[in-house]
Amino acid sequence: MPAVSFADVCAAADRIRRFVSRTPVHTSGTMDRLSHRELFFKCENFQTTGSFKYRGATNAVQKLDAATASRGVVTHSSGNHAQALALAAKVRGIPATIVMPRTAPAVKKQAVLGYGGRVIECEPTIADRLRVVSEVERETGAVLIPPYDHPDVIAGQGTAALELLADVPALDAVVVPVGGGGMLSGYCVAIQGANPTVRVFGAEPLNADDAARSLATGERQPQVPPNSIADGLLTNLGELTWPIIQKHVEGIFTVSEAEIVAAMRLVWERMKLVIEPSAAVGVAVVLGEAFKATNARRVGVVLCGGNVGLDRLYW
Amino acid sequence: MPAVSFADVCAAADRIRRFVSRTPVHTSGTMDRLSHRELFFKCENFQTTGSFKYRGATNAVQKLDAATASRGVVTHSSGNHAQALALAAKVRGIPATIVMPRTAPAVKKQAVLGYGGRVIECEPTIADRLRVVSEVERETGAVLIPPYDHPDVIAGQGTAALELLADVPALDAVVVPVGGGGMLSGYCVAIQGANPTVRVFGAEPLNADDAARSLATGERQPQVPPNSIADGLLTNLGELTWPIIQKHVEGIFTVSEAEIVAAMRLVWERMKLVIEPSAAVGVAVVLGEAFKATNARRVGVVLCGGNVGLDRLYW
Repeated sequence: MPAVSFADVCAAADRIRRFVSRTPVHTSGTMDRLSHRELFFKCENFQTTGSFKYRGATNAVQKLDAATASRGVVTHSSGNHAQALALAAKVRGIPATIVMPRTAPAVKKQAVLGYGGRVIECEPTIADRLRVVSEVERETGAVLIPPYDHPDVIAGQGTAALELLADVPALDAVVVPVGGGGMLSGYCVAIQGANPTVRVFGAEPLNADDAARSLATGERQPQVPPNSIADGLLTNLGELTWPIIQKHVEGIFTVSEAEIVAAMRLVWERMKLVIEPSAAVGVAVVLGEAFKATNARRVGVVLCGGNVGLDRLYW
Repeated sequence: MPAVSFADVCAAADRIRRFVSRTPVHTSGTMDRLSHRELFFKCENFQTTGSFKYRGATNAVQKLDAATASRGVVTHSSGNHAQALALAAKVRGIPATIVMPRTAPAVKKQAVLGYGGRVIECEPTIADRLRVVSEVERETGAVLIPPYDHPDVIAGQGTAALELLADVPALDAVVVPVGGGGMLSGYCVAIQGANPTVRVFGAEPLNADDAARSLATGERQPQVPPNSIADGLLTNLGELTWPIIQKHVEGIFTVSEAEIVAAMRLVWERMKLVIEPSAAVGVAVVLGEAFKATNARRVGVVLCGGNVGLDRLYW
């Protein structure tokens, strides 16, 4: 019995509709020519807080009963989930505590503070992170909303797939970046329920390829220390996300760092969209040689976020 | 009698609808907070060829009768009009010759060639540019389609204003960057016809402020050698555009280079839109102190283009 059902995704869509952006789908003649197919880009870089994470965080926060919600929420993240949860909590009018390694960039802490979250620093180890989160839970009664391995988060992320399928008829496939697998598993559940003829592929950095290895071996594999600029995709597949991905994902394509950078530049240059490296991973896949074997003609590509430091260029 | 009527703009809209993108209007809570008003960004950076220039070029090219069209079109430009005219001609199936100074960046020549245009180099002087254009006209019978001072070009640029007014009810004002004035005069004519209660303001770099000086003095002023990163706004007001602007534009606000750069970075960072410096000029105006005197609450801001070299950052 999977952790998330199609009914959960549909309920999430109803629940969060008032709070999230219905992001547009962009197309590009240049990208179509380069990829030799028709591409439909789901622009989650335009989502509130700059990434798809706001969907899952909003669904989880809005689903809490009033008594539980009043005690607040807590998570550990230095990435997009941190900002997403901070704002989702603020919108509901409840406190959010974000536990961040003291080594996280100041700009990420500022972003969370800007959305009204409270930041508590921890040592940059998993053990200390979990220790501090437990402390916050104990002291405040706050509910932990993890970044991906949670049914309400997964269901929330799946709502983007419902929009994509509604906006683009007759899609052959979707390509979804995979880190912890919250977005990919959400897409799987949504597509399985809405139109199971649409094939689902994952996109992963070669230098953080635990999902590809997991799918190849049939066992959830640990992430070996990852080394990719796609900083949203460095985590390990979750316990809840993995079985869903294993069942529904047809294949996971990996791309090199150079391919990620080239795809990112291309999207900035030709589509005028600021996307983060993690979002470029899916673009690199559909531009790559290996993907040709799928023969997929009309392909949805998820531009999962646009939160990227602009103090330097990546090329 | 102005060079362009509202009927011309409406006819242009009908003529080019099949060829141009109906660009979206984006909003941003962050930008609203920073500007203390409601902003509606017309995303012409998403227009085909990356700028609004494709509207005017397409209108001029599509309006040619078959015999004239068959001899092709010619222009002198190293900017967005060059790319726009090259593609507009290609779409109609006729040749386009673009005269460019031999000092123009290779990437701009490549862009024109990529859209199927023919590039002829000239010396980087106005005299030589005109000489070479005349030569092309004489030898091929091609029609000159200038970048802004042409009724069909102005009418084409005005079509974006019709879309903006249709998409955003109850606008108080629009802020439009001004270089040669093709876009600004087109907006004037369109708004005068569609809803004259909407106030029209120009936005100009302080370092290329011929339009502001012209409006202040009531006489078309020459551009003193301009010195701005907003490379689309360095030209002088045109003979046809100036009287329209003089009659309908309520004021022209100027901004510093630092304000342009800061606005550009803000739009990239918070709105995830790649815009060029010229587009940031309008954004800088609505964020600036001087604009507050207008008391305009709901304001359309034209993001005129997104063609910017990505080899370096501007901040």
